[in-house]
Amino acid sequence: MDLGNALEATRANLNAEIESFFNSAPPLKNSVDISERLEKFIKINELASGNGGGRRVVCVTSGGTTVPLEQRCVRYIDNFSSGHRGATSTEYFVKAGYAVIFLYRRGTCQPYCRSLPDDPLLECFELTDESNIKVHELYSEAVKKAITEHRAAVQEGLLLKLHFTTIFEYLQILRMIALSTSNLGQNAMFYLAAAVSDFYVPWQSMAEHKIQSASGPLNMELAQVPKMLSVLRQDWAPKAFFISFKLETDSKILLQKAVSALEKYKMNMVVANELSSRKEEVVVVTSSEKISVRRNKDRGFEDVENPLVQLLVERHSAYIESSDL
Amino acid sequence: MDLGNALEATRANLNAEIESFFNSAPPLKNSVDISERLEKFIKINELASGNGGGRRVVCVTSGGTTVPLEQRCVRYIDNFSSGHRGATSTEYFVKAGYAVIFLYRRGTCQPYCRSLPDDPLLECFELTDESNIKVHELYSEAVKKAITEHRAAVQEGLLLKLHFTTIFEYLQILRMIALSTSNLGQNAMFYLAAAVSDFYVPWQSMAEHKIQSASGPLNMELAQVPKMLSVLRQDWAPKAFFISFKLETDSKILLQKAVSALEKYKMNMVVANELSSRKEEVVVVTSSEKISVRRNKDRGFEDVENPLVQLLVERHSAYIESSDL
Repeated sequence: MDLGNALEATRANLNAEIESFFNSAPPLKNSVDISERLEKFIKINELASGNGGGRRVVCVTSGGTTVPLEQRCVRYIDNFSSGHRGATSTEYFVKAGYAVIFLYRRGTCQPYCRSLPDDPLLECFELTDESNIKVHELYSEAVKKAITEHRAAVQEGLLLKLHFTTIFEYLQILRMIALSTSNLGQNAMFYLAAAVSDFYVPWQSMAEHKIQSASGPLNMELAQVPKMLSVLRQDWAPKAFFISFKLETDSKILLQKAVSALEKYKMNMVVANELSSRKEEVVVVTSSEKISVRRNKDRGFEDVENPLVQLLVERHSAYIESSDL
Repeated sequence: MDLGNALEATRANLNAEIESFFNSAPPLKNSVDISERLEKFIKINELASGNGGGRRVVCVTSGGTTVPLEQRCVRYIDNFSSGHRGATSTEYFVKAGYAVIFLYRRGTCQPYCRSLPDDPLLECFELTDESNIKVHELYSEAVKKAITEHRAAVQEGLLLKLHFTTIFEYLQILRMIALSTSNLGQNAMFYLAAAVSDFYVPWQSMAEHKIQSASGPLNMELAQVPKMLSVLRQDWAPKAFFISFKLETDSKILLQKAVSALEKYKMNMVVANELSSRKEEVVVVTSSEKISVRRNKDRGFEDVENPLVQLLVERHSAYIESSDL
């Protein structure tokens, strides 16, 4: 078998794995509603005038996916992610004139709400003597800003929020989004900041009922989630600009893993971040560069996502121009 | 070895397991702060006059615990629970004159907020023309009620909220609460509605870094969490009134498992609920009865927690009276 045939065989293998993943997944609830909202959102932004025909659209994924261990789900494996990176980046993309499809894990951090406490309703409000509701002075600015900016983004058609919980929902919705952006061509960007499970229990081999604890230690064998990134890149949205993320706790292997993801999945850029320093610095890896992006501490509470999104927007512009030639 | 010796050996075994669990757990953050708030709360309610010396105090646990799979935690196993049962019951206990220690999983349902949407701040408020914040008419009553009743409960010293995420935090805080209620004697109640992990990875045997996905399927061996319930019951709060919960997806084994938990852990009552019907009906199992408790549909949106808490309060009263004799 020569190299061409070998590659084709691997490809066919992967496609079969992916097909079987989707076939065995529980059907997506509200898929009609999601598809209608998506279509409407894309339409508005195709017609809106950006810099040269149509507004740019970025799909920001955010938060972690879960893997159910039982069909009637009581237990699941979860990937930790507060969703802070995705929520913050969404704000900067909107500021830069992008329309954002924010695909987020239910319950994680929301755009424009980052500086609010966990339970804003119970912690930010109080009653006046006339038993009206009033915002605490401490939070007054933050609450007003959150509501105003969120509302503006939604009303101007710059923000569509879709949520997921399981790995099945995440990949099903991501595929719908990717396919719906085909008319946007190079104007579409994927900014894949979600923490996606690597392992799962195939639906058919899952316990129907709750796993019982009486019988000693629990042994689990988890299968690998098929590497959807290459299909997303090559088949679902072949013209879009792709940024993926690599998170590691071990800095020694981080850059090498980012480079290998860039090559393997043909990403345009990979953002490498280490768990402990990820709010201070990230390294953006491209085929020819490793660019360190740090938040500017002289600017007080600047987010690292501010210079990061600026860099990505510039590179996206260059990508669009180069393909116009 | 006779039966007495055998029991003693089992007991010694369990104690050793529990000691090793706590010794190997990562130290609890904010433990000083938690302990101070707890002490103050118990003191207030010891001094408050209830029906015959001191107010009754119930510890309501709510939501699911997580089990980290890696020391620098990226992945974990989670137990699903919205926290709806615990939050709702808390409201009814406060109404019945109890002081509630609400030990909840961060991010789950909060008392007085059940009828609000996921993101109350973004969904319940709008801006007026003078760019002030205003509650949508649709949510006006619900928002006002949530803020007023929550504030009243906290200010009257009837509600203390403490949160956990991991199984380690949950059990560490639960032990602190149990030990702090010793002066309350029979006036203390434990209402254990949290979904607690049965399996965990001991901290020492946990991977330090993120588990890599390159090397094929993942095999995991999880150890059983030591059965803390019997120690809680017999050593940490021996005089308190204990209610535990049994949730199963398979109704065929549910009652039998509830009865066996009642006997094994010497609970006063076990609430048996089946996943699919748990908002409509539960069965309360005692040593002599199986009492079906249903929500009254004639009363519109009555919660099943309303008659359930009523029943528990009556039985708690009987328990206190009988031990006064």
